[in-house]
Amino acid sequence: MKQLRVGMIGYGFMGRAHSNAFRKVGNFFDLDREIVMKAACARNADKVKAFAAQWGYQSVETDWRRLIAREDIDLIDICAPNDVHLEIAAAAAKAGKMILCEKPLARDGKEGARMVAAIEKAGVPNMVWYNYRRIPAVTLAKQLIDQGKLGRIFHYRAKFLQDWTISPDLPQGGQGLWRLDAKVAGSGVTGDLLAHCIDTAVWLNGSMDEVNAMTETFVKERKHNLTGKVEKVGIDDACAFLARFKNGSLATFESTRYARGHKALYTFEINGEHASIAWDLHDLHRLAWFDHRDEGRLRGWRSIHVTDGDHPYMDKWWVPGLAIGYEHSFVHQVADFLDGVSKGKPASPTFRDALETQYVCDAVLKSAKTNRWEKVAPVA
Amino acid sequence: MKQLRVGMIGYGFMGRAHSNAFRKVGNFFDLDREIVMKAACARNADKVKAFAAQWGYQSVETDWRRLIAREDIDLIDICAPNDVHLEIAAAAAKAGKMILCEKPLARDGKEGARMVAAIEKAGVPNMVWYNYRRIPAVTLAKQLIDQGKLGRIFHYRAKFLQDWTISPDLPQGGQGLWRLDAKVAGSGVTGDLLAHCIDTAVWLNGSMDEVNAMTETFVKERKHNLTGKVEKVGIDDACAFLARFKNGSLATFESTRYARGHKALYTFEINGEHASIAWDLHDLHRLAWFDHRDEGRLRGWRSIHVTDGDHPYMDKWWVPGLAIGYEHSFVHQVADFLDGVSKGKPASPTFRDALETQYVCDAVLKSAKTNRWEKVAPVA
Amino acid sequence: MKQLRVGMIGYGFMGRAHSNAFRKVGNFFDLDREIVMKAACARNADKVKAFAAQWGYQSVETDWRRLIAREDIDLIDICAPNDVHLEIAAAAAKAGKMILCEKPLARDGKEGARMVAAIEKAGVPNMVWYNYRRIPAVTLAKQLIDQGKLGRIFHYRAKFLQDWTISPDLPQGGQGLWRLDAKVAGSGVTGDLLAHCIDTAVWLNGSMDEVNAMTETFVKERKHNLTGKVEKVGIDDACAFLARFKNGSLATFESTRYARGHKALYTFEINGEHASIAWDLHDLHRLAWFDHRDEGRLRGWRSIHVTDGDHPYMDKWWVPGLAIGYEHSFVHQVADFLDGVSKGKPASPTFRDALETQYVCDAVLKSAKTNRWEKVAPVA
Amino acid sequence: MKQLRVGMIGYGFMGRAHSNAFRKVGNFFDLDREIVMKAACARNADKVKAFAAQWGYQSVETDWRRLIAREDIDLIDICAPNDVHLEIAAAAAKAGKMILCEKPLARDGKEGARMVAAIEKAGVPNMVWYNYRRIPAVTLAKQLIDQGKLGRIFHYRAKFLQDWTISPDLPQGGQGLWRLDAKVAGSGVTGDLLAHCIDTAVWLNGSMDEVNAMTETFVKERKHNLTGKVEKVGIDDACAFLARFKNGSLATFESTRYARGHKALYTFEINGEHASIAWDLHDLHRLAWFDHRDEGRLRGWRSIHVTDGDHPYMDKWWVPGLAIGYEHSFVHQVADFLDGVSKGKPASPTFRDALETQYVCDAVLKSAKTNRWEKVAPVA
Repeated sequence: MKQLRVGMIGYGFMGRAHSNAFRKVGNFFDLDREIVMKAACARNADKVKAFAAQWGYQSVETDWRRLIAREDIDLIDICAPNDVHLEIAAAAAKAGKMILCEKPLARDGKEGARMVAAIEKAGVPNMVWYNYRRIPAVTLAKQLIDQGKLGRIFHYRAKFLQDWTISPDLPQGGQGLWRLDAKVAGSGVTGDLLAHCIDTAVWLNGSMDEVNAMTETFVKERKHNLTGKVEKVGIDDACAFLARFKNGSLATFESTRYARGHKALYTFEINGEHASIAWDLHDLHRLAWFDHRDEGRLRGWRSIHVTDGDHPYMDKWWVPGLAIGYEHSFVHQVADFLDGVSKGKPASPTFRDALETQYVCDAVLKSAKTNRWEKVAPVA
Repeated sequence: MKQLRVGMIGYGFMGRAHSNAFRKVGNFFDLDREIVMKAACARNADKVKAFAAQWGYQSVETDWRRLIAREDIDLIDICAPNDVHLEIAAAAAKAGKMILCEKPLARDGKEGARMVAAIEKAGVPNMVWYNYRRIPAVTLAKQLIDQGKLGRIFHYRAKFLQDWTISPDLPQGGQGLWRLDAKVAGSGVTGDLLAHCIDTAVWLNGSMDEVNAMTETFVKERKHNLTGKVEKVGIDDACAFLARFKNGSLATFESTRYARGHKALYTFEINGEHASIAWDLHDLHRLAWFDHRDEGRLRGWRSIHVTDGDHPYMDKWWVPGLAIGYEHSFVHQVADFLDGVSKGKPASPTFRDALETQYVCDAVLKSAKTNRWEKVAPVA
Repeated sequence: MKQLRVGMIGYGFMGRAHSNAFRKVGNFFDLDREIVMKAACARNADKVKAFAAQWGYQSVETDWRRLIAREDIDLIDICAPNDVHLEIAAAAAKAGKMILCEKPLARDGKEGARMVAAIEKAGVPNMVWYNYRRIPAVTLAKQLIDQGKLGRIFHYRAKFLQDWTISPDLPQGGQGLWRLDAKVAGSGVTGDLLAHCIDTAVWLNGSMDEVNAMTETFVKERKHNLTGKVEKVGIDDACAFLARFKNGSLATFESTRYARGHKALYTFEINGEHASIAWDLHDLHRLAWFDHRDEGRLRGWRSIHVTDGDHPYMDKWWVPGLAIGYEHSFVHQVADFLDGVSKGKPASPTFRDALETQYVCDAVLKSAKTNRWEKVAPVA
Repeated sequence: MKQLRVGMIGYGFMGRAHSNAFRKVGNFFDLDREIVMKAACARNADKVKAFAAQWGYQSVETDWRRLIAREDIDLIDICAPNDVHLEIAAAAAKAGKMILCEKPLARDGKEGARMVAAIEKAGVPNMVWYNYRRIPAVTLAKQLIDQGKLGRIFHYRAKFLQDWTISPDLPQGGQGLWRLDAKVAGSGVTGDLLAHCIDTAVWLNGSMDEVNAMTETFVKERKHNLTGKVEKVGIDDACAFLARFKNGSLATFESTRYARGHKALYTFEINGEHASIAWDLHDLHRLAWFDHRDEGRLRGWRSIHVTDGDHPYMDKWWVPGLAIGYEHSFVHQVADFLDGVSKGKPASPTFRDALETQYVCDAVLKSAKTNRWEKVAPVA
């Protein structure tokens, strides 16, 4: 069996999630390539060694340029902070590597466009880790919409609520907290959380035409971990926006890290002419489904326990009724990517797909400043 | 419009619930009789006067024999404690009154049988207030079963859980607490709560063949309100039983007043060959429905919000989505009783229907003593 | 006992809901006035006679001016369509009647301001039927917020979703459907549904500073019931808006009649520094409560079954665990109004309170046209 | 790092679940031994080779006796059908191997007792795969009970409902369906599903004193896969029983494979003096918790999303809000077993612990035949 040799950059939360996927996918899916965990790369030599030991990477690097230069690496997986995505991706593309990149693609659309240009010029297989597309319940929603079961779509609403930054004592910056540092992350909840909502929404409901947003930074200053000084907070703590999709539907989006009681409550709901769908990351194994074509007095929202053999991906796992979790979405994504590599077809979302989300984020952040509706730039 | 003149005996919780139903039914249902709240009766003159004033009864009596003797009373509604049901019902029947009796029919089957004999000899319209049959969601369940939508029934399970008698400091006996006095109530949770579960079960699933029960009295002694002395507690605090229905289905029933966190959690679930049903008094406006004939990957429990115009009784109330509550079940029961009177047909459950529940309770309590399966006596 | 003689204008859905409240309140609440259902008034003599018979009104009128002129009427209840609220209220105020008015107060803020001026000049007791304030769970939410249990508020979100106008075959105008006729109703979902959301929000979270809205009319033309012709639809079928409250919190609001699967899904959620609250009209007897001060590993959203004796209004009804429904909110409102009359204190929301909601609606509808943020006009 | 070399017997559903746990545990838990997947064993050479390839076992065997004889194997994991548990375990114990055995321990208590005797004589580390103890929500329940937070326990209720054998066309016997063959499985739902309920119950609530059961076989004959003939069905399709625990609490247990709409609905609820707990395998990441010590008007069932860092095992996985699934319970069990091996302490449930469950099952099945209460035999 042909090998696919992975070079992983980063060892944080996402480094673990992706490594788990690489290790596991072959146990559950029939692949035509053997994944080899070839090298892990990070600046801190001690930490990357420990990480490699824990996950079975055969070697380590402390400079990503060296990793990319290695001939025994087929695929570069970028799990580093957002501010280095562009540079790494461009170099890896130039080196002809397959590239997987953690979301968001970049800090903004400008960077993202350069990344798309780079990988398309190189012609390398590529994918961005918007993993929620591969939660089986979400994939099922996609199938239902594509089959036309909802009819004309009137409404889309999504939110992603967390509560972990309410304390003003939480610092910003540095490892573990770079998401609170605007220079590194690009933005706050918009790029981190709403990007997920937008990716799913565009996938399920098509492109957005225009958006109208507000943002807020509730805690204005925080100590910065790298400088040790209290610095102005540059990120958006919360962001809500109205949107109009090209299909005529109306939407509301909201994200915050100040919603007490919610840890990672990503929810969406779609209302169509004939049927509606709702989903919730806190109970990710269920899909809510309402079908107006059901007999009148028996209409009701169904709670579908998406664990049966005829549900997306679920024939690979256990038996009906036994739930899988968050991490499995990454396994599915690797499986689909490898399938695409075998068949010479891109696996979604490509860098190009993810650029559209970046442009929506740009329009959202711009609207929050201009206080008016902003058009979403088309992906060239 | 012809009048139907009500004489109410009792003014407690049920006296209020029934009075509310009598006052309200004509506002929402088209009746061919005008309900007149003629007289309220109880031993305590002050209290019954206040009750009559609050509810618009035109007169009061302090002796139920005088009430029954009055010619301007058409219907006697028995809301007095269980130990006087038989005596009052027998006298009212002899006087040719229509009779409504609060559940349970009697303290035991023996008393119940005498009541049935009395009212059937007199040939008067009669009904027992097993009100949960007329919660719209429960009535809908009945319709679905009668239409054969479940196919063969395999399982029935019901429970009625409360938590209000956990404190050993709660006394027994006297007004408000006669339900804890075995001499007055006949039994504890079996006659008070399981009787509801049994009535619904027999109505939905047919007769039971045999039962096997256990009971427990967690607090063995309580101060008695009437004697002022600490006395042995005679009631069952908790009762659970297994049952086999005549249709071959298996059942479990449980009731307790020691289930912390549940105030009046009456639930039932029925599993049939093709479909299943579940209901819960704490969310009484919903019916859970699972239909195996739905498309495979879209199967799921539906939560039917039973508030639409095509749901039982709901065209009489508000608009879709707006829930009614507990008390409305009594209004529906009065409406159905009056409809029966008009058409010369009995309204369920009659005293005879309620006797079957009494016999099941007898078998349950007997089994708890004999520690073996007991057959349910047939209603002669 | 002193009488309070009611003159009711209108006999539709709200005429019934209010009449039920007037008839019932004295059975459950201790009042110092006897409510007398004196007269019902509507243009159609046959219909108003039938209505009066059903609800026990002693007399009928077919001209509201005659009703207001009657000396045996103390209180005028306006349940007529929105376009006549102003004229009736002004006349009733001039005649010195107490006035209750169905929501929304008026078609717009200008009309509303004239109504406030009229009743304040007359100095008569007045109230607008924003009934959801008196759902016990909602009242409990208010108590918790007023006690400071949430701390600083970061987020408010509300929506009111229905699905009854999706069919393009539904006509507009005339009885039963005047809510779809912009000339009569003033607006679509904004005045009908969002007005409820706004009233609750302002009550719970204080005044709004500015709003940013979008509206849509999905079905552009409908047959008009009065003219028989296909006419342009003037109302908003859907409306969503962003808002900033004066306390610094951010909000999203949405309403539509095109959300398949939802009949009357009014929900709100409030996220505070220490705790969060959520409520849902489809399960109106529950309040969701999250308290961050709970022990860490035991934190979770509580589903409070608001049916206990220490919950607002619930000591008046049944026993713990037994739910009341939609209609009871009106009973509570009458009880509070009468209590206010006795004590010489206004009962909320007064016309003045309701004017603030009207101004928010005005700003919302204006923003939907100007496509920018609009300030909410202050109530003078 | 010291190695722990695993020999796996069986390659079915449980062979996969355990292999996944062995492969994964080191990525997430800090272990002092390296797990080496040394050999997989099954009679069918082709299948076991494919299985070994998929899961990374270094070698295969087709005779479990040879596997046990190998010196390079430290631990035998028995995932073969129930009828060979005893023979394999006895041989492996004799060979001094550590032994893990899939549940139920054996077909009955007699076999189980011999297994306990064998492993205890050999003094080898041992454990039975009652994996649900290590679902974090269930482990949390255990902690709360052990801390006395519930006070005196009054009630325990559990059920395990499935619906996969309703069709009479389903055959019995042979691979994949040996659970329907009484000779191989020992019993039906009692040993397969109720054994899980009993194991958890005894762990959480202590030993049972006596039980009273009924069983039913709805489909009396099925084609047998091995003989090709229609044969009598020997297993119990459904079983319900009443129980009394030694702590004085009452219990109901039920299991069936004929509950339409439920795939693997294992639920339990415990009602104590001060608090109650409920859990549901279909939403395994949540624990329901009711605490009567909460402020009166704010009491309610909490839905604890057991995904936070202070929840059992959860600091090893992702970030708060992100759920793990069914398979992780096995990973936790391996981690605890290895920790026990390191510290020289047994990890629960040992063979001895599992024997108690076997004795309860024996009493249940006996009671279903004798139709009376049966005492649970003590583990000698």
